[in-house]
Amino acid sequence: MRPDAPERGFPKVEFETRTRNAQMLMARQDLAGLLLMTEPEVRYFSGFQTLFWQSPTRPWFLFVPAEGKPVAVIPEIGAALMRSTWVKDIRTWSAPNPADDGVSLLIDLLSPLAGKGARLGILKGHETSLRMPLGDWERLTTALPGLEIADATGLVHALRRVKSPAEISKLSHICAIGSSTFSRVPEIVSEGQPLDDVFRAFKREALALGADDVPYLVGSADLGGYIDVISPPSSRPLQAGDVLMLDTGSTWDGYFCDFDRNWAIGHADDPSRRAYDVLWRATEAGIEAAVPGNSCRDLFEAMRSVIAEMDTSGGDIGRLGHGLGMQLTEQPSHAAFDGTVLEDDMVLTLEPSLGYGDGLIMVHEENIVVRQGGAELLTERAAPEMPVI
Amino acid sequence: MRPDAPERGFPKVEFETRTRNAQMLMARQDLAGLLLMTEPEVRYFSGFQTLFWQSPTRPWFLFVPAEGKPVAVIPEIGAALMRSTWVKDIRTWSAPNPADDGVSLLIDLLSPLAGKGARLGILKGHETSLRMPLGDWERLTTALPGLEIADATGLVHALRRVKSPAEISKLSHICAIGSSTFSRVPEIVSEGQPLDDVFRAFKREALALGADDVPYLVGSADLGGYIDVISPPSSRPLQAGDVLMLDTGSTWDGYFCDFDRNWAIGHADDPSRRAYDVLWRATEAGIEAAVPGNSCRDLFEAMRSVIAEMDTSGGDIGRLGHGLGMQLTEQPSHAAFDGTVLEDDMVLTLEPSLGYGDGLIMVHEENIVVRQGGAELLTERAAPEMPVI
Repeated sequence: MRPDAPERGFPKVEFETRTRNAQMLMARQDLAGLLLMTEPEVRYFSGFQTLFWQSPTRPWFLFVPAEGKPVAVIPEIGAALMRSTWVKDIRTWSAPNPADDGVSLLIDLLSPLAGKGARLGILKGHETSLRMPLGDWERLTTALPGLEIADATGLVHALRRVKSPAEISKLSHICAIGSSTFSRVPEIVSEGQPLDDVFRAFKREALALGADDVPYLVGSADLGGYIDVISPPSSRPLQAGDVLMLDTGSTWDGYFCDFDRNWAIGHADDPSRRAYDVLWRATEAGIEAAVPGNSCRDLFEAMRSVIAEMDTSGGDIGRLGHGLGMQLTEQPSHAAFDGTVLEDDMVLTLEPSLGYGDGLIMVHEENIVVRQGGAELLTERAAPEMPVI
Repeated sequence: MRPDAPERGFPKVEFETRTRNAQMLMARQDLAGLLLMTEPEVRYFSGFQTLFWQSPTRPWFLFVPAEGKPVAVIPEIGAALMRSTWVKDIRTWSAPNPADDGVSLLIDLLSPLAGKGARLGILKGHETSLRMPLGDWERLTTALPGLEIADATGLVHALRRVKSPAEISKLSHICAIGSSTFSRVPEIVSEGQPLDDVFRAFKREALALGADDVPYLVGSADLGGYIDVISPPSSRPLQAGDVLMLDTGSTWDGYFCDFDRNWAIGHADDPSRRAYDVLWRATEAGIEAAVPGNSCRDLFEAMRSVIAEMDTSGGDIGRLGHGLGMQLTEQPSHAAFDGTVLEDDMVLTLEPSLGYGDGLIMVHEENIVVRQGGAELLTERAAPEMPVI
């Protein structure tokens, strides 16, 4: 464990502030409540943190009213953990219960709102999903015809994308652990090592250096460069002339880092070194452009104009970075379509990529926090030239 | 890496068989196709395997027609990986694109079905979620009013819950890795060690023994027993008199084990030893009852009747085990509500639990495959008396 680890969890005032800020925005949109059912949103307003969401069996609900504290409607198996949070109104059922997995509890909770023809906010926009059976959602809304359903995606994303000092300290900590792990790669990785062993060695090192988990590790290695950035590892041994890329989403206290590094095994060819250089400078341009008042589109254009030295296709990744926090990827997107204006304390990835050679791709990534005086790096900046192992 | 690891991936015939079996069931329900969007289902019919699903940003779709091979409608970033599967009709868009995240591609694909008033199966029943924005789902169905939406949850679950020999070999392999890891716990864990360090040591050991990932590890330790089974670990040091429980969902080639073990630190008190004994015998009763022809309800009753020696409340976990495979928890459930009849080659967890003392809980868990001659253990059976570290 690193000695400089921040406090785990949050003081109660953090949740009070988040809830109050949500309620101010809800008032503007005339929302009588928010019904949340996805892990980051439930955790954001309650502090309820568990890996148990990996089981698809049970739905979990948190209701944020227009005034007062959130109400949890959850399976009984989560009651003990929810009681340890600031949420005190906890309504449970013995789940799973296919005949009624929380639906009648939700009807009881929301009936008074429906009776007044009130508006209920849910997340139904970009980057959201409905984490309950669609059939149950239809039963719920059919039972409450007076309820007007409104999309609160923008409201919740606007809150979540600006991080508090306590959130930034967690993100900074896991980015530091990620940087330490990447710095150890030349010692734990060598020519001849199968790529899946490289992955295992990296994960074990990240855990040893203090990561809670390494839920996300992707990467590739191939002669002269790689063609894919989302595959599981093969067992092909690393060879001289390979470009190796590792991209990790490791976590500490429920917050993610998300960045990658590239290395040459033995030696690098000119196209790969040039791609590396272009992406390194594209990242520099991104760092410079990441100031309050600029938009995500500006960030995108700053990086894209450097990438265009080598690749004008626009790439197939769809964006050049994104928000970062309780999720590996969060809003906003550094893309031409996203006009979100950067604000102090947004935590972002800068993730320029380009295509080169015969279908090769290269990706760079750093994590930053937007500050008035200029972006602050949370990751230890990648070497300006491709390092050789 | 363990020398006895089975082959990764599946031969093409596995996917042909899965698709053909689905199409036979679809014909009986007059379904013109299945639209799938959740990770296990897309992977089940395509072989598309990536951790990239952890990013909530992009939706992914697989369409299984009434005849012929599946059609992928996916973000361009996944095209290279999808091309390595048996799926050949791959339609992509540059994602994310909030204005049209695959919706118009889906409309193009499904319009011919809508024109005939055909029935499209989706997963909207128990244990499912809609992994696309609800707003996009509404746009899609509004654009295709001729399309009749039918619930295909039962159809897909019926296929998935009986495992192929290749699937069982993967499950057996990760269960063996889990058993080896648990057997090492007395060597890697000791009194005075903070619980979060115990978790890290366990994950590092599982990776060293050949697990691809340890996405799920929960557990507890407290004097005389624990009160909660879904929390992240505290940093409280293990003390003499603690009962320690670790429950892991580790993965190999995309398949999970899911089982736990209990230990006493230094010494155990009588109630904990008795709870352990009752649960060990409840598991025995479950193993005996797990024969083809019995139902999940029978399994539940067999375990419950032993548990009743110490706890007649029925517990708050809602069931005493479940299916296991590509997900940590799958259908069916060992519960009074689930009449699913056991068949050869179902892989199940047996997970008896009970409450005792002042709010304490204990959970045991083993993984089995149902066989004509009687259940076959995939896990190395827990010791009949609580082991002491």
